[in-house]
Amino acid sequence: MFGLMQDRPLLISSLLTHAERYHPASEIVSVPCEGPVVRTDWAGIARRARQMAQALQRMGVKPGDRVATLAWNTHRHLELYYAVAGIGAVLHTVNPRLYPEQIDYILNHGGAEVLLFDLPFLPLVDAQMDKLPTLRHAVVMTDAAHMPAGRDDLVCYETVLAAEDGALVWPSFDERQASGLCYTSGTTGNPKGVLYSHRSTVLHAFLCCAADGLHLSRADATLLAVPLFHVNAWGIPYASAMCGAKLVLPGLKLDGQSLYDLARAEGCTLSLGVPTVWIGLFKYLDEAGIDPATLPFERVLIGGSAAPRALLRRFHEAGVHAFQAWGMSETSPVATVATLLPHQQALGLDGKLDVLTRQGRAMFGVELKIVGEDGQELPQDGSASGELKVRGPWVTSGYYGGVGGQVLDADGWFATGDVARIDTEGFVTLTDRAKDVIKSGGEWISSIDLENAALGHPAVEAAAVIGVYHEKWQERPLMLVVRKRDTAPEPAEIRAVLEDKVAHWWLPDAIVFVDSLPLTATGKLDKKAMRAVWKDYLATA
Amino acid sequence: MFGLMQDRPLLISSLLTHAERYHPASEIVSVPCEGPVVRTDWAGIARRARQMAQALQRMGVKPGDRVATLAWNTHRHLELYYAVAGIGAVLHTVNPRLYPEQIDYILNHGGAEVLLFDLPFLPLVDAQMDKLPTLRHAVVMTDAAHMPAGRDDLVCYETVLAAEDGALVWPSFDERQASGLCYTSGTTGNPKGVLYSHRSTVLHAFLCCAADGLHLSRADATLLAVPLFHVNAWGIPYASAMCGAKLVLPGLKLDGQSLYDLARAEGCTLSLGVPTVWIGLFKYLDEAGIDPATLPFERVLIGGSAAPRALLRRFHEAGVHAFQAWGMSETSPVATVATLLPHQQALGLDGKLDVLTRQGRAMFGVELKIVGEDGQELPQDGSASGELKVRGPWVTSGYYGGVGGQVLDADGWFATGDVARIDTEGFVTLTDRAKDVIKSGGEWISSIDLENAALGHPAVEAAAVIGVYHEKWQERPLMLVVRKRDTAPEPAEIRAVLEDKVAHWWLPDAIVFVDSLPLTATGKLDKKAMRAVWKDYLATA
Repeated sequence: MFGLMQDRPLLISSLLTHAERYHPASEIVSVPCEGPVVRTDWAGIARRARQMAQALQRMGVKPGDRVATLAWNTHRHLELYYAVAGIGAVLHTVNPRLYPEQIDYILNHGGAEVLLFDLPFLPLVDAQMDKLPTLRHAVVMTDAAHMPAGRDDLVCYETVLAAEDGALVWPSFDERQASGLCYTSGTTGNPKGVLYSHRSTVLHAFLCCAADGLHLSRADATLLAVPLFHVNAWGIPYASAMCGAKLVLPGLKLDGQSLYDLARAEGCTLSLGVPTVWIGLFKYLDEAGIDPATLPFERVLIGGSAAPRALLRRFHEAGVHAFQAWGMSETSPVATVATLLPHQQALGLDGKLDVLTRQGRAMFGVELKIVGEDGQELPQDGSASGELKVRGPWVTSGYYGGVGGQVLDADGWFATGDVARIDTEGFVTLTDRAKDVIKSGGEWISSIDLENAALGHPAVEAAAVIGVYHEKWQERPLMLVVRKRDTAPEPAEIRAVLEDKVAHWWLPDAIVFVDSLPLTATGKLDKKAMRAVWKDYLATA
Repeated sequence: MFGLMQDRPLLISSLLTHAERYHPASEIVSVPCEGPVVRTDWAGIARRARQMAQALQRMGVKPGDRVATLAWNTHRHLELYYAVAGIGAVLHTVNPRLYPEQIDYILNHGGAEVLLFDLPFLPLVDAQMDKLPTLRHAVVMTDAAHMPAGRDDLVCYETVLAAEDGALVWPSFDERQASGLCYTSGTTGNPKGVLYSHRSTVLHAFLCCAADGLHLSRADATLLAVPLFHVNAWGIPYASAMCGAKLVLPGLKLDGQSLYDLARAEGCTLSLGVPTVWIGLFKYLDEAGIDPATLPFERVLIGGSAAPRALLRRFHEAGVHAFQAWGMSETSPVATVATLLPHQQALGLDGKLDVLTRQGRAMFGVELKIVGEDGQELPQDGSASGELKVRGPWVTSGYYGGVGGQVLDADGWFATGDVARIDTEGFVTLTDRAKDVIKSGGEWISSIDLENAALGHPAVEAAAVIGVYHEKWQERPLMLVVRKRDTAPEPAEIRAVLEDKVAHWWLPDAIVFVDSLPLTATGKLDKKAMRAVWKDYLATA
């Protein structure tokens, strides 16, 4: 027997309609690539999103069609989040930091008919255009004054927007319809597309607005330092409309000084970004001699990769509640949030950091388990370590176009490729990517635990541990270390720090100093590249 | 094109499973009708809910079957919230304060096969039993020691629960399946059943946990002073599991002293209840000479009927953020929440009360409009007044058994029967029930505005305004006033207070002092009963 409740779908357009009615004057501040700061608000975004939706329809965009972007964090990109999904089309955000051949692959695989891009990406787009058979319109996200001269083949965003009256009523449709497409920057094989739905997006926004989730509220002014091309900017563009938060979009400038100045000017209470962004921020503050206590943030969410303890400490010492969330493209992305439980509020800073350096606990809607190599579930006792599996209504069920085949097991669990421990309270601690796990004589060694331990040495700026070939143990850990400027620690000093923190047999067979570590296009340690260089180091050393 | 996100249903059982895993030790404190305080936690509730689910299955309860309760706020009633819905059956909570013939009608119409009830309701149940043809099991919600002697026809809750091992895995099914049934205490016609679904219930719980919603969090200890038989206790039993809040269930004792003592003993940060409960609490504090600043609450939600300004003021003067929410059985119930917007935080107390005496703004998911007598939408300008219509995924689409026929208009809107203004910021102010509207010479007079104005006189304890027959104007307002003890204001004094607040032509033609005002079974002013008595007062005066 069905309940007798209204059959109203959860649609992305309803988020914008709500913001327009209830939070029309909440500001949206945007730093476009080519020009001065633009100040608008949710009413302005809603009006322009309807105009852009009409413009897209006039270009022939129909429900299910993909509309691609190569763009930074601006109000125009935010408008496209709503304009495209609102008419039932699919917003395909492409990461412009990928290698050109990856961009080529992703754009082709997504099959967009319209591509919208920021002016700085014109050379990139020009190099792609003739390789994109489905592409019918290339739109520059700028105004007429900034359009490239003599390019009749390009459409001007502001010109086509201004030609529409905005008298569009958002259509209603099945909440399971696709709304967004984002490719994972897989370090193995070609990128794979995660296809979000209106339902998954709206449910995920509820999590962002939950008091125990990200606690996004209308009282927040959010500096969005995570790119709009990166997993829906962690859902914040949707959640901000749900609650009416002010949103500050820094364009392409994610350097320390730009973020600091913008956060102060706009009174930002919250920001979100990957660790490298925050490391850059503190580097700027230190070099400029600025007291971190002048940061206006109340909260900072660090995601994308594990936040170093020292980074969390610096924020907390500055009075900013920095915390982590864990997820991936396949989880929309937020799956776990690491905030303090009531009984942990009384801990001292070190005790709090012990909690906050973990990846957090599953929020309602997300189920987690860890499994051994035989696929059997392992106990969540804080010591067993296994591959993390996840299940929930904002978790992927397969990749776009059927790439990768069946990705769920018989009970509907998605294997994350992350290796983790889960403690009795439910806190997840990532210990490795499954493909980066070091197997020494059949036992697992956690590279992340070793890296975190090394970062406890004051002269270590960055550290990476990889498994390399060993004649007797098949694999043994090798540690690569970037030293801080004007320091010269010996390997033995770093080894001494590790000895306090990990089992003796985990200690790296060698500690090697390097000038820098290779990163992936999303700023993560590129261990595949490191293994290619160092794989025979122990055999030949 | 559908998204590729997991097809996981939003089920009530998943709320409990989440609480059991992530908040096992969050306390549930219960005051059973017959005995001492019971202290358990979400892990205990989850275990016992599974056992009770098995017991219900053993009694033959199948998906879609109704399971009725006549019970106060105890841990056993909370267990049934999950046990019944968890196996796909429908929890039919019956208000024991209704007239016996209404209870008879509701139980018969709901057609439950199992009825569970608290010991004090045995006489009531005995009087009903032979009138309930579908009833197969009557279960007393108590332990063996308290079972009525010599009653082999009754089942003991604790005995059947203890016979089960709890090894039940909650089944998965369509989220649109019915989960709960609650009859509206309509003052016209027979009560009508609102049939909730798993989907509507879980979505409503997200709203309760939203930072800008009710802000329920794991840091809360909630004194549930709204009955579990009253519109799902405003959704708190579900939302508490979603976030892991402590829940304090006061049993049948909602008097001022019991609530005060329990709130203090359990450190309650939040409570929820109807105005009469809070008026009783302050009456107790005043008589006992207790400083209201000793109330442990941070927040108090007042709902069910409009909160008098004086009541809101007393809470705020005591440092408790009291606020209103508006809704009805047909809206699950929360539709609007009256909290201060960021720009209102700086107001003085009087300015804040001007905001907080309104019924609040629609939360995401709820759409509102007001329409005139011709059905045309009216402007939300703060002055136009019309019938309030509502739409959303936790709003009813029809009544159980098809009673009342088609209740939605062509665009899917549900007519609430409330008359309201909506201002430019979206704040709703209820001015009347549609059936209580006073039409004087074709123009509407708001009885609620008049009543609120009268409550501004320090000697007025309660006031009700009804429309009564008038030869020239068809209807004119008559005000009935209950004076506070040891006061004796004249009608002219009260009239003087009104003159400052309302248009001259709204002033009541007569102000009559009465000893008490008739209330409905849910504690609202029973204007139908008043009209029956006073309808000819102006004609015969």
